[in-house]
Amino acid sequence: MCGIIGIMGKADVAFDVYRGLLALQHRGQDSAGIACFDKVRINLKKGVGLVSEVFTDSNLSLLKGKTAIGHVRYATAGSTPKLDSQPFVVDIPHAMAIAHNGNAINYQDWDEHFKDRTESCCDSEVLLHLFSEKLNGDRQLTVDKIFDAVKAFMAEVNGSYGIVCLVENLGLLAFRDPHANRPLAMGRRGADVAFASESVAFDAMGFDMVRDLKGGEAIFVESDGTIHEKSLLPKPAKHCMFEWVYFARPDSTLDGKSVYEVRIALGKELGKAIQKDSAGKMQGQNGLSMPDVVIPVPDTSRPAALGLAEQTGISLQEGLIKNRYIGRTFIMPTQEGRERAMNVKLNTVTSVVKGKDVLLVDDSIVRGTTAKKIVGVVKKEAKSVHLASTCPPIQYPCFYGIDFPIQSELVAYTEKNLDGIRKKLGADGLTYQSLDGLKRAIGLPGLCTACLDGHYPTPIPDAMRKKLELSRSAERKKVETHYA
Amino acid sequence: MCGIIGIMGKADVAFDVYRGLLALQHRGQDSAGIACFDKVRINLKKGVGLVSEVFTDSNLSLLKGKTAIGHVRYATAGSTPKLDSQPFVVDIPHAMAIAHNGNAINYQDWDEHFKDRTESCCDSEVLLHLFSEKLNGDRQLTVDKIFDAVKAFMAEVNGSYGIVCLVENLGLLAFRDPHANRPLAMGRRGADVAFASESVAFDAMGFDMVRDLKGGEAIFVESDGTIHEKSLLPKPAKHCMFEWVYFARPDSTLDGKSVYEVRIALGKELGKAIQKDSAGKMQGQNGLSMPDVVIPVPDTSRPAALGLAEQTGISLQEGLIKNRYIGRTFIMPTQEGRERAMNVKLNTVTSVVKGKDVLLVDDSIVRGTTAKKIVGVVKKEAKSVHLASTCPPIQYPCFYGIDFPIQSELVAYTEKNLDGIRKKLGADGLTYQSLDGLKRAIGLPGLCTACLDGHYPTPIPDAMRKKLELSRSAERKKVETHYA
Amino acid sequence: MCGIIGIMGKADVAFDVYRGLLALQHRGQDSAGIACFDKVRINLKKGVGLVSEVFTDSNLSLLKGKTAIGHVRYATAGSTPKLDSQPFVVDIPHAMAIAHNGNAINYQDWDEHFKDRTESCCDSEVLLHLFSEKLNGDRQLTVDKIFDAVKAFMAEVNGSYGIVCLVENLGLLAFRDPHANRPLAMGRRGADVAFASESVAFDAMGFDMVRDLKGGEAIFVESDGTIHEKSLLPKPAKHCMFEWVYFARPDSTLDGKSVYEVRIALGKELGKAIQKDSAGKMQGQNGLSMPDVVIPVPDTSRPAALGLAEQTGISLQEGLIKNRYIGRTFIMPTQEGRERAMNVKLNTVTSVVKGKDVLLVDDSIVRGTTAKKIVGVVKKEAKSVHLASTCPPIQYPCFYGIDFPIQSELVAYTEKNLDGIRKKLGADGLTYQSLDGLKRAIGLPGLCTACLDGHYPTPIPDAMRKKLELSRSAERKKVETHYA
Amino acid sequence: MCGIIGIMGKADVAFDVYRGLLALQHRGQDSAGIACFDKVRINLKKGVGLVSEVFTDSNLSLLKGKTAIGHVRYATAGSTPKLDSQPFVVDIPHAMAIAHNGNAINYQDWDEHFKDRTESCCDSEVLLHLFSEKLNGDRQLTVDKIFDAVKAFMAEVNGSYGIVCLVENLGLLAFRDPHANRPLAMGRRGADVAFASESVAFDAMGFDMVRDLKGGEAIFVESDGTIHEKSLLPKPAKHCMFEWVYFARPDSTLDGKSVYEVRIALGKELGKAIQKDSAGKMQGQNGLSMPDVVIPVPDTSRPAALGLAEQTGISLQEGLIKNRYIGRTFIMPTQEGRERAMNVKLNTVTSVVKGKDVLLVDDSIVRGTTAKKIVGVVKKEAKSVHLASTCPPIQYPCFYGIDFPIQSELVAYTEKNLDGIRKKLGADGLTYQSLDGLKRAIGLPGLCTACLDGHYPTPIPDAMRKKLELSRSAERKKVETHYA
Repeated sequence: MCGIIGIMGKADVAFDVYRGLLALQHRGQDSAGIACFDKVRINLKKGVGLVSEVFTDSNLSLLKGKTAIGHVRYATAGSTPKLDSQPFVVDIPHAMAIAHNGNAINYQDWDEHFKDRTESCCDSEVLLHLFSEKLNGDRQLTVDKIFDAVKAFMAEVNGSYGIVCLVENLGLLAFRDPHANRPLAMGRRGADVAFASESVAFDAMGFDMVRDLKGGEAIFVESDGTIHEKSLLPKPAKHCMFEWVYFARPDSTLDGKSVYEVRIALGKELGKAIQKDSAGKMQGQNGLSMPDVVIPVPDTSRPAALGLAEQTGISLQEGLIKNRYIGRTFIMPTQEGRERAMNVKLNTVTSVVKGKDVLLVDDSIVRGTTAKKIVGVVKKEAKSVHLASTCPPIQYPCFYGIDFPIQSELVAYTEKNLDGIRKKLGADGLTYQSLDGLKRAIGLPGLCTACLDGHYPTPIPDAMRKKLELSRSAERKKVETHYA
Repeated sequence: MCGIIGIMGKADVAFDVYRGLLALQHRGQDSAGIACFDKVRINLKKGVGLVSEVFTDSNLSLLKGKTAIGHVRYATAGSTPKLDSQPFVVDIPHAMAIAHNGNAINYQDWDEHFKDRTESCCDSEVLLHLFSEKLNGDRQLTVDKIFDAVKAFMAEVNGSYGIVCLVENLGLLAFRDPHANRPLAMGRRGADVAFASESVAFDAMGFDMVRDLKGGEAIFVESDGTIHEKSLLPKPAKHCMFEWVYFARPDSTLDGKSVYEVRIALGKELGKAIQKDSAGKMQGQNGLSMPDVVIPVPDTSRPAALGLAEQTGISLQEGLIKNRYIGRTFIMPTQEGRERAMNVKLNTVTSVVKGKDVLLVDDSIVRGTTAKKIVGVVKKEAKSVHLASTCPPIQYPCFYGIDFPIQSELVAYTEKNLDGIRKKLGADGLTYQSLDGLKRAIGLPGLCTACLDGHYPTPIPDAMRKKLELSRSAERKKVETHYA
Repeated sequence: MCGIIGIMGKADVAFDVYRGLLALQHRGQDSAGIACFDKVRINLKKGVGLVSEVFTDSNLSLLKGKTAIGHVRYATAGSTPKLDSQPFVVDIPHAMAIAHNGNAINYQDWDEHFKDRTESCCDSEVLLHLFSEKLNGDRQLTVDKIFDAVKAFMAEVNGSYGIVCLVENLGLLAFRDPHANRPLAMGRRGADVAFASESVAFDAMGFDMVRDLKGGEAIFVESDGTIHEKSLLPKPAKHCMFEWVYFARPDSTLDGKSVYEVRIALGKELGKAIQKDSAGKMQGQNGLSMPDVVIPVPDTSRPAALGLAEQTGISLQEGLIKNRYIGRTFIMPTQEGRERAMNVKLNTVTSVVKGKDVLLVDDSIVRGTTAKKIVGVVKKEAKSVHLASTCPPIQYPCFYGIDFPIQSELVAYTEKNLDGIRKKLGADGLTYQSLDGLKRAIGLPGLCTACLDGHYPTPIPDAMRKKLELSRSAERKKVETHYA
Repeated sequence: MCGIIGIMGKADVAFDVYRGLLALQHRGQDSAGIACFDKVRINLKKGVGLVSEVFTDSNLSLLKGKTAIGHVRYATAGSTPKLDSQPFVVDIPHAMAIAHNGNAINYQDWDEHFKDRTESCCDSEVLLHLFSEKLNGDRQLTVDKIFDAVKAFMAEVNGSYGIVCLVENLGLLAFRDPHANRPLAMGRRGADVAFASESVAFDAMGFDMVRDLKGGEAIFVESDGTIHEKSLLPKPAKHCMFEWVYFARPDSTLDGKSVYEVRIALGKELGKAIQKDSAGKMQGQNGLSMPDVVIPVPDTSRPAALGLAEQTGISLQEGLIKNRYIGRTFIMPTQEGRERAMNVKLNTVTSVVKGKDVLLVDDSIVRGTTAKKIVGVVKKEAKSVHLASTCPPIQYPCFYGIDFPIQSELVAYTEKNLDGIRKKLGADGLTYQSLDGLKRAIGLPGLCTACLDGHYPTPIPDAMRKKLELSRSAERKKVETHYA
């Protein structure tokens, strides 16, 4: 869960990267960084915080260079934001900088080997040194040698990645994992070439989207602008479905599918399950009344709620208002304060909710902690609260970059059945998207739905699985911060 | 355009005020402050920035006291945020602290008189000293003396105000201007009493709304909890209509009217004006096609767009996506950068907008600068853009606290007719709410609509008007920041 | 160990106080503060750090007022700099601000009584409330009532104090403890009146010294400039001898005695003890050779070294160089680093020290920790190191404001005899000033030498003594920071 | 006027460099930086401020690497501290970092050539690229190739330099300009090797001084510890005399001469000129009385004052006290404040100065501005003030690194004779060191005394001279900050 950008332009491009990172800020708010290649030197600025906090007029002016890469980072459990912020840089034997979105499952294979030369605990830095090693031999690089190194890299790394990389004064490299699990696209603005995790970055930087990279493909843009494209290790597509469900911005298009339209469709698919039974009650919900009103949990689920309202004919209302001025962290020192924190973040519109049968639409339910709080806020005033999730039950951890908790913390895994989950969340009714509904809504054949069905696109050895789960601390941030 | 809170509780209340200020943050983001009365001393902390920036766990812990007031400030043109941040304090002859929302038109009458004892350029500080002077005489205060002073104050001050005031160790005072132009309400939580500009503050602090103060009314809560309520100088209600249109939060209820429901109604009223003519085109819009889609300008106009869509039957879509991570200021140093800034702030969903006849709903149009930029962003992809404003044409400056520009900067004043405004904004069509529609939507008899019709609730001498207009610098912030 | 200043002027005086505090910075580097009376309000700015860190052009400009007091604080063990920084303020029933130098031994008598209204753990704040209470009765103050309150205060408080106090809009009050233990003097600049702990503050502010306050005397300067002086509770003088030995600046004159001249005299007195015996060796130093060179430990002991060199005829050399750029704290993270820290702070001039018999002059020896380190630095190169202290052996704790450790940490108490101390410090020879020599050098009849002879000027009940000793944590700062 | 350090050790050395920079802080307080070579990467941290401000426990921990260089910078007029802070880094074709003390007179020869690859306005960065270019050719470096490049560099660069340079993973390079104008020495600590501008850095880092580098010599320490020493372009020594007079620390030894002993000797030489004439007055001083007292201007001239006092038999007194807590800048906003600033910085000991004939010893007189202020402070109390400078008249600008003003600002140049200078300074008498006295005191044959006699060690073309003078802004810092 990170965002990356790379640009080769005709003039200094740090400000373009900055604009692009602002547009990708939703993919990571923990740290941000830009590395530029300036003729004889890589200039680097990275730090902890939002893009707008890390970069100033003054430090952006110092980031000279016509080639640059940028990164926004979502710190996963156990990481140290300061050390782990990207891009990472190496000077010997080749001056390079890398920005990586994804997760290398087997990075600990090389951890020991590269121990001396890494400064972080981050798999991305290990990948940089692995790639650097694949390049080595003699010191004069060529495009063919670079592609050979990428191919060797792809053959060894088990996991997901979108990567942009500055290679000396030679050019800008971009490549995507064989299964195309993490997103990566190419754009153009006149003679300038860019790569980005999501198409919104192109909109913000004034570039036009050209196309998505294919799984196992690499593109190298030489300093003179020559573009080399090569399919190195293609495998069946396994695009992460969660990008459309929750993670990407609605105004992005990923692998040809508009995120907004997918979410509308998710709402419609979900709406098909909201049926009246013969008694005029909701089908299969223990006599719960049909909803008076559809309310999205702001902001992600708004398009889905539109689709659902259209599909069911139930009135859509903005019955939950989010405080726009509260950042991810704000102090609530007393116990009582922490309990009331959700009221400060999210508040109901009394006239909409009071005494109503409410259908609450959320994008997904992970641990259930936040969902429970939201249901609680609404239930204070509503007659009943039915929760609908645009994502099917999440029952398996993700090893490809989405920071889902360990299995024992996933409410859809720990609770034995739908009614158990419903009770846990304190809701009067609960409807999940079906796996088929999800696939129809996205409309692409090659999807990774491992967190839903346990079918991982690459081998996950048991030992590795245990090790990885252990390394995830109990304190999860996703659930806490989703509605911050 | 500020927010105020006052609480008298049974224990330290600074954290409650802090929570309330977070909920009122939309009323002012330039400075924040809290003053507490702690037995023998007024403790004050105020500063420039957001509530979450000014207050820390550490400084809130130092703010001891069972009585406290708080303030968030929207800095108007020409003000110096550091000096003008509230609350203001006086120690001699009575230790008091004040927080004020509104505008005293004739504050310059006393400016000279109090020159020596003010530290800011703020009318609110002048009001504190005026009130302090009214109290004077002998040093032993009583509730009656306090009410007499408030009455004398009301008789002299021409303007609008909601005021909360700590009065020595005696208690907490709240009062509202005779016309009830600025909002102020009372809430309770067990034995604790609170006052706030909007009801959302009560939700955030765990208080229940009791009632709005009436115009010209004062309430004094003694230290022992005894509540004194007195109507001192009531005049016909002239509630500011712009609170419902734009300023207040949708989950607030002001003077008995839910802001959310008023906005839904504003959309419906506006929808009545969107009619098909005999040729199947939009009535009175020079042959413009009927819209394919209704798109709200996020976030204020979303409920209105819902109402309009329902009224007209046109499909509502979230075709404009706002970047949630961009604060009011972010750097865009180059000229080209500044021109692209709107693209970074607001982006279209291509699948929704491309080739469509779009009906864009915005809450209001002031200078027109921002509206023009938004229309421009949508027009890059849409077939046509029709702009609908939930507020009638704003043609007169406000002297009661809304930071509307001088008349010569109001696009509805400078352009001679609707078509002139439309051209100025670059739109293909333009529809304004009617004054009657606005009044029906709000549904209250006593409204101030001076910025629409020029009928000011209190006398505005010509000389004063000129002087006030002069004092407003050309650089306006409202327009610039509305969609930030 | 603090510094205080008070000024009543004809114009704003905050900048004068600021200059005076810069000159008194050696009396306390932990926090600084200024309170001004501005017609109807006390303006306060205080914070942790040096005077130049706490005050800026911008915040000084906000400190309006013709009467002001200031404070620099030396945080004693266990204190919390942020809370305990001065001045302290009270608003009810009289707006006042106080700055205090000294120590109230029995402040815990009222601790419980004032618990609700204090915000710090500082005896000074308790004194403010005690004085405030003495003033109370009716609300109209007069000079007589103020003097009566001071007298009642003096009768109750066991301890030492120099105090300056803003009293409403009435004027500026200054008073000194009955034994005149802590210093306080009055100065003038035209019609402006000032009070300060040391005369250097007058030099820095452009004032002329008028006279020292007498023990038990109070001076009140009315707003119109009228000066009232009154002896309220005089007792025999017991001036703290450590002001001349170490604490005050050499360019100050205290109670009529130039600090510089006293230190020269201390060196001469000490020199009388450095005698050659019949064998040409140092008398009473076990055959140690007479010194080749006299070296002061910079900076305090420099004048004493001059006096000693003149008295003995031994050559004075600046053989120890202090790093001017190291503040009190600088990081030395590794164990090895901490051990080398003294080398970074103080370094020898090899050509002066190498192979020489060195006489090192230091102002005083408290715990002996720092002295031991300095002796060690010099011994690396010198043939022998003889240490001479301008202060007699410190064997008893101080209860009047000097942060001497508890008795069990005083090297002159724990070691049974001179030779024991010498060994502990790692020196080859050791000479202490005699008590008579000290008294001759200062040349004033009334001195407090309690830390040397255990004769305290006021009663120290055993229970109180134990309690106070307990409250002093093991980690002492004086010794550590003396040569920082 | 900068300080440099380089270390190759067996473990991480950043903390050693940090300690060394603390000891060299007097050579530059404007910026500080450390670059480390960590196997595959150069880690860099630099910033504006003191060493203790730029470095923290946290950022020092990140500076991994067994080879490192460090720099403290004295910003000359017109420089931008942030951009110009050192070390500078280059990645392509060889990863290197450089720290430079000195001045390249002809750096503008290559300015245009390297324009694209420099990020600062600093000659030091140009030198890095010049050296990098000399190295180029094939990519595999050897010690011989490195020495060849240094020799070619020395042949081209007109100016002064001590330089330390990290060269890839190969090792640490140090070299000194042909005339040995700027200081540079080598030290050892077991197997660890270090280079530093002054020997005090070795003391602080726990190294032993080995020897000074010779003019035109280079030393390269390979990663395995092998040391290569080579004389590349030796020329007659022209050591800068101002290092001993003012710039270096007294506890340093430069080119075999103890700075302290030189200053004692300077005082003695100066003392020879203070003679009684037949009338018992000072010889050649228009009837001025012989001084009662010798007072050093703290801190630099203290040893010289000792020497002078010994030579003349006049009593030495510490009659001027410097405020230890005032940094280089402290606010003094009002005009009156600025005039009094010197009183806050330096104060007289009245008992020493009052009514006396004072001989003030200062290290040097440049513009005379500060000297005039100090004379003024003393004259308020003294009977007469005679100023003695341990440095002969400074009449020519320096082009080798000392930030002397342009000629028209040098008081010894603009005033026609000694009496003119004396009057300008407001002194009653004035004595300068003679050039011969200076040479005798330092006792080395090869000295640069260009600022005294105009004989520059390298060619200074007229055009260049004019250009350089122009680039120096009127606002000089040396004079202002000398006594801060």
